[in-house]
Amino acid sequence: MKLRIIITGGTFDKHYDEIRGTLGFKDTHLPEILTAVRCTLPVELEINQLIDSLEMRSSNRERILASCRAAAEEHIVITHGTDTMVETARVLGEAGLKKTIVLTGAMVPYAVNGSDAMFNLGCSIAAVQVLDHGVYIAMNGRVFDWDNVVKIREKGIFEERQSTHNGD
Amino acid sequence: MKLRIIITGGTFDKHYDEIRGTLGFKDTHLPEILTAVRCTLPVELEINQLIDSLEMRSSNRERILASCRAAAEEHIVITHGTDTMVETARVLGEAGLKKTIVLTGAMVPYAVNGSDAMFNLGCSIAAVQVLDHGVYIAMNGRVFDWDNVVKIREKGIFEERQSTHNGD
Amino acid sequence: MKLRIIITGGTFDKHYDEIRGTLGFKDTHLPEILTAVRCTLPVELEINQLIDSLEMRSSNRERILASCRAAAEEHIVITHGTDTMVETARVLGEAGLKKTIVLTGAMVPYAVNGSDAMFNLGCSIAAVQVLDHGVYIAMNGRVFDWDNVVKIREKGIFEERQSTHNGD
Amino acid sequence: MKLRIIITGGTFDKHYDEIRGTLGFKDTHLPEILTAVRCTLPVELEINQLIDSLEMRSSNRERILASCRAAAEEHIVITHGTDTMVETARVLGEAGLKKTIVLTGAMVPYAVNGSDAMFNLGCSIAAVQVLDHGVYIAMNGRVFDWDNVVKIREKGIFEERQSTHNGD
Repeated sequence: MKLRIIITGGTFDKHYDEIRGTLGFKDTHLPEILTAVRCTLPVELEINQLIDSLEMRSSNRERILASCRAAAEEHIVITHGTDTMVETARVLGEAGLKKTIVLTGAMVPYAVNGSDAMFNLGCSIAAVQVLDHGVYIAMNGRVFDWDNVVKIREKGIFEERQSTHNGD
Repeated sequence: MKLRIIITGGTFDKHYDEIRGTLGFKDTHLPEILTAVRCTLPVELEINQLIDSLEMRSSNRERILASCRAAAEEHIVITHGTDTMVETARVLGEAGLKKTIVLTGAMVPYAVNGSDAMFNLGCSIAAVQVLDHGVYIAMNGRVFDWDNVVKIREKGIFEERQSTHNGD
Repeated sequence: MKLRIIITGGTFDKHYDEIRGTLGFKDTHLPEILTAVRCTLPVELEINQLIDSLEMRSSNRERILASCRAAAEEHIVITHGTDTMVETARVLGEAGLKKTIVLTGAMVPYAVNGSDAMFNLGCSIAAVQVLDHGVYIAMNGRVFDWDNVVKIREKGIFEERQSTHNGD
Repeated sequence: MKLRIIITGGTFDKHYDEIRGTLGFKDTHLPEILTAVRCTLPVELEINQLIDSLEMRSSNRERILASCRAAAEEHIVITHGTDTMVETARVLGEAGLKKTIVLTGAMVPYAVNGSDAMFNLGCSIAAVQVLDHGVYIAMNGRVFDWDNVVKIREKGIFEERQSTHNGD
């Protein structure tokens, strides 16, 4: 089994620019992480884009979908900002590809103390190997179906849709 | 779904004792980790033992098996030293419990730079939720069946049994 | 000898707010750091303000000067943003207090990988105990007199004034 | 001013060997640290030896003394294990070289969470630039004279000699 990881940026890969004093993008930390965790799974890395997910437009999501469609691999992990991860998952889910696609991200950048990036990446890499075709989000130690998940922004966590719309 | 994590020590939880200048056990880092990664899955933590897996005897493995058997939860993650993880997995696998059990560990302690602990824990927590009943090892970004895995000690990685015994 | 550390914020103490996705101030990391490094010097911590040094106005600097003047301690370290550290040092230097005052800061926040915060704090704490009365800046492993230092913003380092104005 | 750092190993530079599961020596972290903290002081690094200070014999200390004597630099920092740092300082102190020599080390390795290595290195680098000729130990945020310091092993800290021999 070979895995493709499509990198889109998000908090996961944010980098502290010490000259400007700001958080932004410089490069991805994925190669460094995969080496550190001694991942032996064959992985193809693709830097699709490096942006904050709040800046994702329809065209950005189409670029991700196009990569998923074109990928030779059947198993795909996508690193993505958390703010609009659900929207991108919907675009991919509605496309109905015959692939297993898991989106993940981080609430705290990999480069910052107390980051959830490595844990979330681990969740997504295990999930993508075991799950049936479909589109999923792996966050908070859980795996959600693309059409049954929301981000509760003020809490910074993902939940199942119904659990937040009681009485619907 | 509720998850039980059975803690047995291993490199994962090793702690640097600055007075003695040695690595040993003091307490588990699991509560700290689960908070940092903002895991929202209900998790029951059980400190079964805190030892180096090279010191595991038959009685130690029986204690782990007894905990798995007694657990109310159907999904169980076990943190374990890597050196004899395969042996413990065999004891659990041969018991044939109607549960999903995933063993994981770390090559570098959580408390040391470049640790694989958080990544491996993420892999195991996602895998245990998705896999059928059985006993598995989640290491190196992969998920192995208990009866088809070996640790290649000199490389510090896990592999499928057949891939290392070509020609059997 | 008792030391006072006057905390004013700056990059040193910036904290990642995972809900907003921004770097800002929440609290100081100084108590945590002093415990970790097992500092046995008696230290009085004072949170004077927690701001970015680019937002420092004359009134902010007066508040720092007032604290230095009022302090019972003869030895004072000030954590400060690097962008206007030189300006604050000048205000303190011109006041001519009979105290030893060392300003320090960080180019990368304490909470971010690869931070220079602990090293710089170490420099400042050693320097303040050994130097004569006066106002100094400890950055880049060096100790500068307040009236002979500039920050080279595009390089992110401090240098002696004359070395950057050749030919004056 | 040019600084020489004489590296002798000690807890400061201990490295976790993930294959053997032990702490030992592989290489020094000094170049990495000096880059991270953006030290602009000219520094000459010398790996004198890489050993645990409990294994230091008279010949090991003679090798350090020989390096100090031979050094072109007047300012020397020595990284050293804490257990016998005081003994090495005495050998150097009794030699009465016309140089400023500061020994430092760490209670927790640089590569382990919560390390005091960067802080202590910062202390020593500032102290060595400011102090008169002599031999000193920089630990716990303090600077001690070589002939007036002891390590209190059970507390893991350094103190002045007289403060521990009240009533002598």
